[in-house]
Amino acid sequence: MLDNTFTIEVSARHVHLCKKDVETLFGAGAKLTHNRDLSQPGEFLTNQKVDLVGSKNTIKGVSILGPEREASQVEISMTDTFALGTPAAVRESGNIAGTSGITLVGTHGSVELTEGLIVAKRHIHMTPEQAKQLGVQDKQIVSVAVDTDRPLIFGDVVIRVKPTFALAMHVDTDEANACCIPRTGATGRIIL
Amino acid sequence: MLDNTFTIEVSARHVHLCKKDVETLFGAGAKLTHNRDLSQPGEFLTNQKVDLVGSKNTIKGVSILGPEREASQVEISMTDTFALGTPAAVRESGNIAGTSGITLVGTHGSVELTEGLIVAKRHIHMTPEQAKQLGVQDKQIVSVAVDTDRPLIFGDVVIRVKPTFALAMHVDTDEANACCIPRTGATGRIIL
Repeated sequence: MLDNTFTIEVSARHVHLCKKDVETLFGAGAKLTHNRDLSQPGEFLTNQKVDLVGSKNTIKGVSILGPEREASQVEISMTDTFALGTPAAVRESGNIAGTSGITLVGTHGSVELTEGLIVAKRHIHMTPEQAKQLGVQDKQIVSVAVDTDRPLIFGDVVIRVKPTFALAMHVDTDEANACCIPRTGATGRIIL
Repeated sequence: MLDNTFTIEVSARHVHLCKKDVETLFGAGAKLTHNRDLSQPGEFLTNQKVDLVGSKNTIKGVSILGPEREASQVEISMTDTFALGTPAAVRESGNIAGTSGITLVGTHGSVELTEGLIVAKRHIHMTPEQAKQLGVQDKQIVSVAVDTDRPLIFGDVVIRVKPTFALAMHVDTDEANACCIPRTGATGRIIL
C-alpha cells in the first residue's frame, strides 16, 4: 500500500562545478573527491569547499556537490542573498540564463561566474512510477503540506520526474526554518 | 467596504530591554533613544545596538526596540539559532519562561540573560473592531495565504487583539524569505 507522503530534505547552500572550473579552483588535473552519498542516486558531497564572494560579504567554506556538471551553478537561500549583498532569482536547477554572477575562491584560484547564482525553486524528485502513483506529472506545480509544530503549505512546488531520481522533496534552509523542519528532514504530502 | 487583507511586515532580529539592562549595557542613567516609529503605535526603533554572543558565534549590531519592557527579550530567526549555536523555542512575545539564555554586549557592559531568547511565533496584531470585522478572536489560531511569486500558506498564526494595536501581520526573516516577501512587506489574507 502506498501512502501519499514523502520525506522533505533540507538543502543547505551548495555549489555545482563544471570540469574547467574545478581545475581553475583546485589546480590542473584536480578532481572532485567523494565524501558521502546524497539521497539522489549518483549525487555526492565532495571533500572540497569554496568561498562565495558577494558584493558586500563573503560566505566561506561552501560545500561542493559532485559529480561535475556541464555548467557551474551556486544554490543559496534568500537569507544568503542579503548576507552576500548579491540578489538571486528563484529558479529551477539548470535554468540559469540571465541569473546573477558570483565569484568563487578555491585553494588554487578563483572563478568569476557571469551567471549561475540561484535560489532553488522548491521541488520534488521522483521516478515515473512514483509520479503515476502520486497522480502528478513532470513539471506540474503542486502545493505541499508540512505537518511540523510550525506547519505551513508550500505553494509553487515543481514536480521533477526522472527514472534515476529517488522520491524526496528539497527545500532550502529558509523554507525549512519557516516551518521548523529539522536537519534530519520531515514529512510532506501533496495537495493538488 | 472592508476587504479581508492586511499587510505582512518583516521583523528582523531585535532586542527588547528592561530598564536595568539598559543601564548595565549603556551606562548608569542611560535611556533608549528614539530613531523612528514602527507600525505598532508607541513602538520605536532606537539608536542603540547590542551584540548577541551565542555558544558558537556572535551576531553584532542587533537593533533594540523601545520603549523599555518589564523583562528583556531577544527575537531571532531559526537561521540565527544555527549561526549563534544556541537553540531557541518558537514562542509568543512575552512568553519566555523556560526559554534559552543569551549574552548581550553593549557599549558599557554585558548582560547574561538566563532566559528570553525566542523565535517569535507568527502573529497578526489588530484592534477589537478589526477582529470583529475579520471574524476572529484574541488568541485564535488561523492560517494566512501569502500571494507572492513564491506563494505559501502559513499555519499556526496567532491573532493578537488590543485596542492600541494596528492591523499588521509579523513574520521573521526566514518566513519572509521562504515566500519572498520583500522588506517593504506583502499582502496576506486569513484562511480560517
